[in-house]
Amino acid sequence: MTSVVWINGEWLPATGASLPLTDLSIQRGYGIFDFFKLINGKPVFLEDHLDRFYRSAAAMHLDPGIENDVLTEVIYEMARRNTLEDAGIKLTLTGGASPDGYSLARPVLIINSTELQLERSMGSGMKLITDRHQRQMPAVKSIDYLRAIWLQPAIKKAGADDVLYHNGDQVTECPRANFFIVTANGEVQTPASNILAGITRKKLLDGMLEGYRVVEKDFPLSAVFEAKEAFVTSTTKMIRPVVEVDGKPIGNGQPGPVTTAMAEKLFKQVYAL
Amino acid sequence: MTSVVWINGEWLPATGASLPLTDLSIQRGYGIFDFFKLINGKPVFLEDHLDRFYRSAAAMHLDPGIENDVLTEVIYEMARRNTLEDAGIKLTLTGGASPDGYSLARPVLIINSTELQLERSMGSGMKLITDRHQRQMPAVKSIDYLRAIWLQPAIKKAGADDVLYHNGDQVTECPRANFFIVTANGEVQTPASNILAGITRKKLLDGMLEGYRVVEKDFPLSAVFEAKEAFVTSTTKMIRPVVEVDGKPIGNGQPGPVTTAMAEKLFKQVYAL
Repeated sequence: MTSVVWINGEWLPATGASLPLTDLSIQRGYGIFDFFKLINGKPVFLEDHLDRFYRSAAAMHLDPGIENDVLTEVIYEMARRNTLEDAGIKLTLTGGASPDGYSLARPVLIINSTELQLERSMGSGMKLITDRHQRQMPAVKSIDYLRAIWLQPAIKKAGADDVLYHNGDQVTECPRANFFIVTANGEVQTPASNILAGITRKKLLDGMLEGYRVVEKDFPLSAVFEAKEAFVTSTTKMIRPVVEVDGKPIGNGQPGPVTTAMAEKLFKQVYAL
Repeated sequence: MTSVVWINGEWLPATGASLPLTDLSIQRGYGIFDFFKLINGKPVFLEDHLDRFYRSAAAMHLDPGIENDVLTEVIYEMARRNTLEDAGIKLTLTGGASPDGYSLARPVLIINSTELQLERSMGSGMKLITDRHQRQMPAVKSIDYLRAIWLQPAIKKAGADDVLYHNGDQVTECPRANFFIVTANGEVQTPASNILAGITRKKLLDGMLEGYRVVEKDFPLSAVFEAKEAFVTSTTKMIRPVVEVDGKPIGNGQPGPVTTAMAEKLFKQVYAL
């Protein structure tokens, strides 16, 4: 965290910034957030992130208490005050300080920033383990990462990098990334339902990478093991190949040509924004 | 909250007590808690609550960093310092201040107290609405009340008091209470699986109320509407009748004789402890 944070209209030193114990995030795990990156001080896909932030807030009965245009100004002001270049900015909206620790209160909006070492190209292949779990209210970017944090020792023990959720019938997502496969006939597919709609995923579906069509389609876990390639997308990772799931290689166990080409194109385009 | 709280070994003024923004409860909704009552300054069923607290902590890879006997002393010390008579004490254990906002850190244990107006007898009949939802990691008393808090406007709109969860196949629990029915042939049943094992529920199952046998048995939602009586148990409510579910009366829509008799017996016994 860098020098200042913004909490419900006040600029405060990041060191020592805190929430009262009565806040519903601490009492009841109730809050939402969004996170976007700055490249050379400039927010990337800011409108998409703010759209999603306001949608998450509304879905959770939380009023951010600030209009989109004012929030945008605060974000630019934070970039200036904290002299951010390559960085991440996080908007967190909690249920607020509840007198009885249960009823919804006046929401608290926190804006803070972190310096980020942004990748300039596709990272090495990731290894995933699978876990049967369906995130509650999946369309909302809530602060509920109970299962993901709980799984950390299991991920470490398996020598893996992250977990891929499935709900029994279909593959859904990783805790902080969307999941994609390249099928035997070359189609790029990503789960359609019961997921958080990531912004990088949206850009790919919207055809940002010319020549690479991506299809929304639910598929079972078996489809992952039959896939030629697999990858994940996220704001920080952009595109990163998945080479192993539950100890079994995907394709030939190396980052595939479609993934590599898409990643190169995406990195180039995002850094040129 | 009363005058002092205890956070990782320090006594601090309750007013202004806070957690840093980096705490995993705020960042990722990661934490557990337990809650018990004091009657005339004396903790009720303390051993059971501490047993469950340590079990929840272990299940979530959280080390409370304090032995049971020392924790017990701190609890009695809090009752003295805050001159507690009828009160609630809450133990909260969070994932701690995480440098990257994701990895498990050194847990933070918070002990605080609230004055409580304890009921001296069974309250009026409650109205519930139902919601299809399965709490994740149900055996753990986690801080995850995302669904429960989210449902508050719907509960209010229906003129109800609380929500009864079912997972499609079986009835489970209310967000902060266990659920019971009295069947047509007079058997008192409470769901066996996918629930949090409440301490009042445990006492009833252990035969605390002589002459009233309670059976652990999973049942579908239809069984609730066929029941003669229904009630919930919790640390604060003890036993409270349920007279309506989804707008339909349970039995004759009044607190039933078995519920009333059990409640009277329970209140008498707990206040005599």
